Amino acid sequence: MTREKLYLYDTTLRDGQQTQGVQFSTAEKLKICAALDALGVDYIEGGWPGANPTDSAFFDEAPSTRAVMTAFGMTKRAGRSAENDDVLSAVLNAGTSAVCLVGKSHDFHVTEALGITLEENVENIRASVAHIVAQRREALLDAEHFFDGWKANPSYALECLRAGLDAGARWLVLCDTNGGTLPHEIYLIVREVIAAGIPGDRLGIHTHNDTENAVGATLAAVDAGVRQVQGTLNGLGERCGNANLTTLIPNLLLKEPYASRFEIGVSLEALEGLTQVSRMLDEVLNRVPMRQAPYVGSSAFAHKAGLHASAILKNPTTYEHIDPALVGNRRVIPMSNQAGQSNLRRRLGEAGLEVAPGEPALGRILERIKAREAQGYTYDTAQASFEILAREELGLMPEYFEVKRYRVTIERRKNKRDEMVSLSEAVVVVKVDGEKKLSVSDSLDNEGYDRGPVNALSKALAKDLGPYQSVIDDMRLVDFKVRITQGGTEAVTRVIIDSQDGSGRRWQTVGVSANIVDASFEALLDAVRWKLIRDCGKDG
Amino acid sequence: MTREKLYLYDTTLRDGQQTQGVQFSTAEKLKICAALDALGVDYIEGGWPGANPTDSAFFDEAPSTRAVMTAFGMTKRAGRSAENDDVLSAVLNAGTSAVCLVGKSHDFHVTEALGITLEENVENIRASVAHIVAQRREALLDAEHFFDGWKANPSYALECLRAGLDAGARWLVLCDTNGGTLPHEIYLIVREVIAAGIPGDRLGIHTHNDTENAVGATLAAVDAGVRQVQGTLNGLGERCGNANLTTLIPNLLLKEPYASRFEIGVSLEALEGLTQVSRMLDEVLNRVPMRQAPYVGSSAFAHKAGLHASAILKNPTTYEHIDPALVGNRRVIPMSNQAGQSNLRRRLGEAGLEVAPGEPALGRILERIKAREAQGYTYDTAQASFEILAREELGLMPEYFEVKRYRVTIERRKNKRDEMVSLSEAVVVVKVDGEKKLSVSDSLDNEGYDRGPVNALSKALAKDLGPYQSVIDDMRLVDFKVRITQGGTEAVTRVIIDSQDGSGRRWQTVGVSANIVDASFEALLDAVRWKLIRDCGKDG
Repeated sequence: MTREKLYLYDTTLRDGQQTQGVQFSTAEKLKICAALDALGVDYIEGGWPGANPTDSAFFDEAPSTRAVMTAFGMTKRAGRSAENDDVLSAVLNAGTSAVCLVGKSHDFHVTEALGITLEENVENIRASVAHIVAQRREALLDAEHFFDGWKANPSYALECLRAGLDAGARWLVLCDTNGGTLPHEIYLIVREVIAAGIPGDRLGIHTHNDTENAVGATLAAVDAGVRQVQGTLNGLGERCGNANLTTLIPNLLLKEPYASRFEIGVSLEALEGLTQVSRMLDEVLNRVPMRQAPYVGSSAFAHKAGLHASAILKNPTTYEHIDPALVGNRRVIPMSNQAGQSNLRRRLGEAGLEVAPGEPALGRILERIKAREAQGYTYDTAQASFEILAREELGLMPEYFEVKRYRVTIERRKNKRDEMVSLSEAVVVVKVDGEKKLSVSDSLDNEGYDRGPVNALSKALAKDLGPYQSVIDDMRLVDFKVRITQGGTEAVTRVIIDSQDGSGRRWQTVGVSANIVDASFEALLDAVRWKLIRDCGKDG
Repeated sequence: MTREKLYLYDTTLRDGQQTQGVQFSTAEKLKICAALDALGVDYIEGGWPGANPTDSAFFDEAPSTRAVMTAFGMTKRAGRSAENDDVLSAVLNAGTSAVCLVGKSHDFHVTEALGITLEENVENIRASVAHIVAQRREALLDAEHFFDGWKANPSYALECLRAGLDAGARWLVLCDTNGGTLPHEIYLIVREVIAAGIPGDRLGIHTHNDTENAVGATLAAVDAGVRQVQGTLNGLGERCGNANLTTLIPNLLLKEPYASRFEIGVSLEALEGLTQVSRMLDEVLNRVPMRQAPYVGSSAFAHKAGLHASAILKNPTTYEHIDPALVGNRRVIPMSNQAGQSNLRRRLGEAGLEVAPGEPALGRILERIKAREAQGYTYDTAQASFEILAREELGLMPEYFEVKRYRVTIERRKNKRDEMVSLSEAVVVVKVDGEKKLSVSDSLDNEGYDRGPVNALSKALAKDLGPYQSVIDDMRLVDFKVRITQGGTEAVTRVIIDSQDGSGRRWQTVGVSANIVDASFEALLDAVRWKLIRDCGKDG
């Protein structure tokens, strides 16, 4: 059976940039553009040339892509010709092979926001699209507020579409600009539009997530007949975001009826890079990746419930809707007080510890985890601390060194120039191979800035561990999370530390105490001990 | 027209707790339970009694609710009677008026995960439901993997439902446990189930967000005839989360055809508390609220695009699908333009500061907030620190006292009994009325436990403020949140402190520094200064 072509149109670089707090640099735009192109989308909307310097600079770079590079702009204003509209000229001057123009299709917006007549608006659409086509570019019309417009005045909304179609637009994109239309309405309205004579293979869909239905509304529009799908990576976009291509792509490729019915530009091989593309974008934005994100989140295949975890061990399809490897993600079985021994054995296996079923230490490990969770610890993410705890119960944890004591001083006072400055200093005393070692460090970084007491402690601890020093020299503290939680009846502080070494390996450890510095120190100690296990072997 | 009743069933405290990284304390469960009850859901699933100590302790507290309190468990195991199943007994012993049991409805899971015969499983369902009903409890059957089960073996899936129905279950909940079923399939299968003779007003729907369609699939099931909707606040839950009640509730109350067709337990008045409930949960979890969350996110009504922002100023309905006030949220327009200043004046008014439009200090305040937010501060919740900043620019902030310096020492060492103990000590030097005062305090509480350096600092600071001492004597530090965030190019620590006084007044302040103790001290200082403004007047 021949599959129909369904086109993917990415607007991460344009509508995605409307996300509050997001402002791409030109270099970042180029990086995202390359990732989108490798993924296999059909169109990349690069921005609005002339609207801001970054967008203009991006088009000046003219990245070479397999996807159709598209510039975004708006239909010409009333009272001037398309040729003489400077905003439109700037868009065309970007020299892209396709141009997408937003035009009004809701009568209320024409009169209220633009303040022109309904006829003028239709003429603006017609003349603008014709102008683009005359320049031998592919033209797309973004019909803004189309669904609200249809509900208010269907014949006018249709007239706007027809003006674009007759002027030669390749695509008429139905936009639910305010994001308030539910999927069943989207479906019904698209059906009516097609019934009124606009061919489905000239229609696109552009939705927003204001009712948490952007993905579903897009699928509903495809069901109803549209053949171009617009969205953004990780669902970036104005307000609650656009339809999330990171979810839509696997939905279309892996789920029926879409998988059998449509041909899309993304291959199954490229799909395996999806998680990485999603994380790359978060990295560019310096955002913590959303754990619960469908398909690509670190929790998307995490099985926490005890019943789920034990069944997954027998057969992963019991609690997984797809194989995580298809999207480049992986299965996680977190440790928690809800899990049982089989889950525990599997997690030990991941740490390279094969333990026979029924081994008495398993029960002791579970008991200790339970007791510690009651004190405020959590081993869901702190896999390295979990491994150390388990090794202790299994008799597989060497005592590389012993911490005898430490002291940290934090001071804030006026300096000679009468400025308030702060400084911390830490002394750590450890015993290694029978030898006592005192190390001291302050909290200043290379540029002389105070980085605080945990930094000072971390440096003092890692300063002289005798024979182990070379193993920990490439360790860095890369993230540090603190929360106040309940430990028994008292509030305690839980610290989770992310460490990384020269090989790019990254691991998490946890510490708990009423004293935040002490909790941090505990997590630091675990981080060092885990690194020693990995790189010195268990003989110490 | 009489509206049909649609029941809301919340499982934040049970399935929500399956979220990776989430582990509620009993006190937190009670707090969330009270918020759900005030919101108006019909059922609150409190957890699985006997499965873990926190859930058991929650039911021991037996919170009194208007909503039907429900305990979760599983159908009895094969080879024993319902009366003799200890897991089921523990669930019943919680004494709730409703009990929801998960039972298999997918043949593959019966043979693969449970390893029993199909007949045994049906009998387990029947006997377990009958046992609950015999104890005069309302029984609910969670039909696990129902949709996958239906696709594999519809007659067996149906047989499982019938066993529950015939045994007297009030509700049969159709679960898309693995989250892989798309909304159109959910719709079609629910229609078939109803056509097969199971009444829609006995059916519930339970979906997960693995294809980003949990909300849409729930609506599709309602369209097809189910009359109970399950979900969680903020879409917490196993893997990608459950259907998000925080979105579903406004969708059902404000959108057609639901608004006209159904009666739900949440009133329009309670809906105005929705944003607050959502933020409260994030606060309990110490999570950054998701900006892009539909309805309740801080970006949900943020208008960044220039065209949108200018139209919004003419008429908010141009780019908003609902009035943000309906869900207790608010419109955000970038600070740079006019709307920024009127927002600011409104917020100053809330602090009792009436400022005339056009007052030059307004621009300075906005600039300073912008600069500080770039450094990592946030004034969303820290209203007291916001007020202090504004007062400084308005010339309305007296200098009650000046901090000259402080020093904190944190030590950990072995005591005489060879136990590791920790202790902090803080010295604070302030100048009040021209007089220098040195105060010192340790970190021990009344029972001799070390409460850490921030506690020591807080006590030392509040020990002797001369004439102001009596005003701050009733202040207590009641909560303390720490987050690592971005300040310019470096990671910095942001501390938010909640303080409370004898009158029950509670206020929030913020501090930012690379040094966690220093950030805490800044927030402590603001807390004291705010209290002095309130109780000494602005003359100092």
